[in-house]
Amino acid sequence: MESKVVIENFLDKKLQELLHVKVEKLDHGIKTGIIKFFEFHGFPAMQFKKDVGVMETGTVIYFRNKIEVIRGFPKIRRTLMLSPTIKNHFKGKIALEEKMNGYNVRIASIGDEIIAITRRGYVCPYTTKKALEIMNLKDFFNDNPDLVICGEMLGTENPYVAHYYEEIGDIGFRVFDIRKKVSNEPMPIKEKTELLEKYNLPVVRLIGIYEVNEASPIIKKVIKEIGSVGREGIVIKDPSMEVPPLKYTSSEAHADELRYAFTYPFDFGRDFFFSRVIREGFQAFEMKENKEELEKRARRLGEAILYPMVDTIKNVASGDTAGEDLIIDVDNEEEAEDFLHYLHDLGVFAVILKFEGNKAVIRKIHQSTTDKITNYINGGLY
Amino acid sequence: MESKVVIENFLDKKLQELLHVKVEKLDHGIKTGIIKFFEFHGFPAMQFKKDVGVMETGTVIYFRNKIEVIRGFPKIRRTLMLSPTIKNHFKGKIALEEKMNGYNVRIASIGDEIIAITRRGYVCPYTTKKALEIMNLKDFFNDNPDLVICGEMLGTENPYVAHYYEEIGDIGFRVFDIRKKVSNEPMPIKEKTELLEKYNLPVVRLIGIYEVNEASPIIKKVIKEIGSVGREGIVIKDPSMEVPPLKYTSSEAHADELRYAFTYPFDFGRDFFFSRVIREGFQAFEMKENKEELEKRARRLGEAILYPMVDTIKNVASGDTAGEDLIIDVDNEEEAEDFLHYLHDLGVFAVILKFEGNKAVIRKIHQSTTDKITNYINGGLY
Repeated sequence: MESKVVIENFLDKKLQELLHVKVEKLDHGIKTGIIKFFEFHGFPAMQFKKDVGVMETGTVIYFRNKIEVIRGFPKIRRTLMLSPTIKNHFKGKIALEEKMNGYNVRIASIGDEIIAITRRGYVCPYTTKKALEIMNLKDFFNDNPDLVICGEMLGTENPYVAHYYEEIGDIGFRVFDIRKKVSNEPMPIKEKTELLEKYNLPVVRLIGIYEVNEASPIIKKVIKEIGSVGREGIVIKDPSMEVPPLKYTSSEAHADELRYAFTYPFDFGRDFFFSRVIREGFQAFEMKENKEELEKRARRLGEAILYPMVDTIKNVASGDTAGEDLIIDVDNEEEAEDFLHYLHDLGVFAVILKFEGNKAVIRKIHQSTTDKITNYINGGLY
Repeated sequence: MESKVVIENFLDKKLQELLHVKVEKLDHGIKTGIIKFFEFHGFPAMQFKKDVGVMETGTVIYFRNKIEVIRGFPKIRRTLMLSPTIKNHFKGKIALEEKMNGYNVRIASIGDEIIAITRRGYVCPYTTKKALEIMNLKDFFNDNPDLVICGEMLGTENPYVAHYYEEIGDIGFRVFDIRKKVSNEPMPIKEKTELLEKYNLPVVRLIGIYEVNEASPIIKKVIKEIGSVGREGIVIKDPSMEVPPLKYTSSEAHADELRYAFTYPFDFGRDFFFSRVIREGFQAFEMKENKEELEKRARRLGEAILYPMVDTIKNVASGDTAGEDLIIDVDNEEEAEDFLHYLHDLGVFAVILKFEGNKAVIRKIHQSTTDKITNYINGGLY
């Protein structure tokens, strides 16, 4: 109760100054449930489920002895065309970093704890544990308690976006940004790289630093190479991090995402489809593709949509549910169950299929796809 | 004014009895603009822009000496699977009619006029004129003033859905239903065919009448044949027309529609896409396609999406607008301008490109596609 009074006073007075968000906006966010209060390890905390003023979706605030504001990771805009966008958007030089296919995680210290926060602002117990296992984060946060490590959790044993990378294997992490608490100010590329090196933390691949005027043809070449080995894309950054970064992805990545979406068409198909297809159109145009290249791209697109859908219909017709199996590495079955509870709290329906050694196989059920396909193959009308 | 009072009395008392729609629903429809009043050739009329009770979208009511209720053409449900849906939905026998690719028109007599009404309930001046030119409708409506002819306007010189059919050429019409005014009751297949024959009016192709239990494999074969010659699909009907009909379309028709939608991706892509792709998935599954057939279908799908989009981006990049040229056959330039005014009233932006002989070339402009592509190729962010 005491802490509630503290928060209320705080909300009326100091929070708006600290966050640079007007108290009316904060009040409105709280009333509409956009800002949610929760308890974390015995202390009150706030989560921003959508943007509120300058506070990004996924912002979390922890009220302990100190008030810790971990801002949401800013949405990176996408460009459909490399030229002339890069020249228009950046000045002087650009840094090209690889964009890898995993899930966005922010790692920060809160009191004497280190936690890993997902994009939308949840503390994921599995991600927190794995981050601490695969990296030595203590020294970094002892020395830099006001910094947030932003990066991608990767590999085949991550429970959100499983993707195989040779250099990652089961699970791994790559840092792409170091940002300040409260302000969300990002560190320039050079400082970031040096700081991560000092603490032996894994940084994303810096492909190179180029003159803005020369970048487009280089990026085209890079994107083709990256795509040809099944990798996702790039993030184009201002080396000083003063201009917001842009992202650009390979055709193979678009196909990968469509393949996933159309494995569960009635859960993801409608939302995923349009933007991926539009990206393909502009990329084919900008790459000035010849007949063969265009045919190859069209085939990849068509197969990415049709094949997984037919496979799922077959599976559901033979009595299966449309489900996605993921593997997590846990010390015991209880830990797997804890993760399941966490998923249930997020509204994801999942069950443990098996537990063997220290691996749990978890099946996420995509109910809408299962139900609709079942209905249509039993004679339901569209 | 006098006619307004007549209508108001009528609305309160008789209309609800005549239409079997409660007066509250009619009032609500009028207040929200779903039911629109307009004047047609000096007489008041009503148009239903959406369903109101049992009145279908596109219903029009003309208040003359007699009150003429021309019901909207009922939405035909689609099946994604032939088996078991046909067996579940129909009993005894089914009639297979060809579904052709044009636009839905209802023709009726109002007073001493014969008018052609589009799906949404507009009297199209061009369609009305052409319907009267290509068919002898007078005798039919003299003898049957309470019937409505429902059919498809077809050919390359129809201004809404231009599609070439060998047997149609420039313009033609095929009747698929004869329905009663007010009740919308459809005539059984046999009576319909005989009545149309008597008046020498063109009926859609009746492919055959089959036992429900034997229909699925026959329809599969028919759909493949129809698709292989670039035709659209079929409507499956209860010969007595007591059970609502179902429609089912060929893969080539889905590709055609996607090709059109992705010629103007930012105008139509998002809405068109999902359902066409879903149809492809279930059809491929039901047809038990082998590797080669599935590859062919995937390629057709991918090319239908990618190629027109790339072409349109190229065109817009070279300074064109994303526009669709249509040809109409008119007696003079004034008639073309009348049609243009009609389109403008419907909110379609179009211009006359040229007028030569008795043909007018009209360009419909797809503004959203033009604007968005222009923005992205000039460096706008997605």
